[in-house]
Amino acid sequence: MIRRKKGLIIVISAPSGAGKTSLCKRLLQTSPLFYYSVSFTTRPPRKNEIEGVDYYFVSREEFQKMIERGEFVEWAEVHGHMYGTSAKLIDEAIKAKKEVVLEVDVKGGTEIKRRYPDSVLIFLLPPSWEELEKRLRNRMTESDKEIKQRLARAKKEVEYAPYYDYLVINDDINKALEKLLAIIEAERCRMKRFPTEELKNFISNE
Amino acid sequence: MIRRKKGLIIVISAPSGAGKTSLCKRLLQTSPLFYYSVSFTTRPPRKNEIEGVDYYFVSREEFQKMIERGEFVEWAEVHGHMYGTSAKLIDEAIKAKKEVVLEVDVKGGTEIKRRYPDSVLIFLLPPSWEELEKRLRNRMTESDKEIKQRLARAKKEVEYAPYYDYLVINDDINKALEKLLAIIEAERCRMKRFPTEELKNFISNE
Repeated sequence: MIRRKKGLIIVISAPSGAGKTSLCKRLLQTSPLFYYSVSFTTRPPRKNEIEGVDYYFVSREEFQKMIERGEFVEWAEVHGHMYGTSAKLIDEAIKAKKEVVLEVDVKGGTEIKRRYPDSVLIFLLPPSWEELEKRLRNRMTESDKEIKQRLARAKKEVEYAPYYDYLVINDDINKALEKLLAIIEAERCRMKRFPTEELKNFISNE
Repeated sequence: MIRRKKGLIIVISAPSGAGKTSLCKRLLQTSPLFYYSVSFTTRPPRKNEIEGVDYYFVSREEFQKMIERGEFVEWAEVHGHMYGTSAKLIDEAIKAKKEVVLEVDVKGGTEIKRRYPDSVLIFLLPPSWEELEKRLRNRMTESDKEIKQRLARAKKEVEYAPYYDYLVINDDINKALEKLLAIIEAERCRMKRFPTEELKNFISNE
C-alpha cells in the first residue's frame, strides 16, 4: 500500500466576523488526528486560561531567545505582548502524521507557506461585506470605533486572499465544515504527498 | 456572493483492473451536475450501443476533418479504429458550469492538461500490484497472453502517475468514491477558480 510521508499543515485565516474560531473548534472535534498548534505568548495568563491548552506562557526573555534560535515559524507583537508559533511543535506533529491546524493572520499564513511550501492555506470569508459588518455589530461587545478598526483591518486581510490555496465561503457553518473536511481529504490524496519511490516499488513488485 | 467562473474538468486515468469504469459510473450517479464526455469513434456501433450515449459514431473522413480543424483535445488509433475527445463539448459543458468527467488513458490525460491547465487529473490505483493482477485474472474473459499484455501496459501507465494531481487508492469502492467527491469539492474551493475582480468587489462594497 502506498502511503503519505507526513501529516498536513492546515492554515486557516479570515477577517474577524468570518466565523473562524467556531469553525476551527468544530473541525478539531471531528477527529483526534487533528492537532491544534498552541501558541507561545508573553502575555500573562487570564483567569481560566490553562498552560499548554490556551497558550504556552513564557517570559519576554525566553521569547526573545526563541526568536534568536529561529524556533518560531511566525511571531508578532500585538498590544505590547508577543505571540509566536513554534516550528518544533509543528515538525513533531507532522512527523507523527497528525494534521496540524493553525489559526493565524494573513501575515503569519504567508510566513508559514514560505517555511512549509506544502502547507494548505485556507481563507474563510462571510458571504458578503454587509454580512461581515452585521456579524461584527451583532457582537455588541465592541464600540463603533473598534468595529471600524476591525473593518479596516478586514479589508487589508482580504487583499491577501489571492495568496491562499482555497477560499471557503462561510454562509452556513455545517456546509463550511464539510468544505474544510473535503479540502483536507483531497490534500491527503495529492500526488506530491506520496513518495515517488513507493510508486516505483509498486510497479517493480510485479 | 463570490462565484466560480466555470465548471471543472475531471480526468480519471488508471491501469485496467483498477476499477475505473465502475467508479466513474458511481460518481456520475451522485449528481446531475456531472457531465460525462462522450467520445467520437470511427468504430461501427455494436448491438445495444446508442449514438450520443456510448459514442458519437462518425466516418473516418469526418474524423479526419475534425482532427484537421483541431476539434479534438486528444485522439488515438486503437486496433484500426479512431477514438477522440471533442474540445467543443468540453467547452460548452464547463461554460454551463457542469463538471466534465473524462475517462482517458495517461497519454490523453497529459494532453488534456496541456490544453486545459486547470483540469484536475486523478490517477486511480488498486492497493497493490498483486491485487491488480488478481483482479485481471478474475475477469476470466481474457487469455494469459492478454493479461500479460495488460500488465505490461499497466506498468507503463503507472510511470505517468507522477504527472497527475491526485492519487486515489481503490481499496474499497465506497471509500474511493468519497475521496473522488472530496477532491471535486476541494477543487471547487481553489482560490485560482474565483475571479480576482470578485474579491476586489467584495471589499469595495464596504
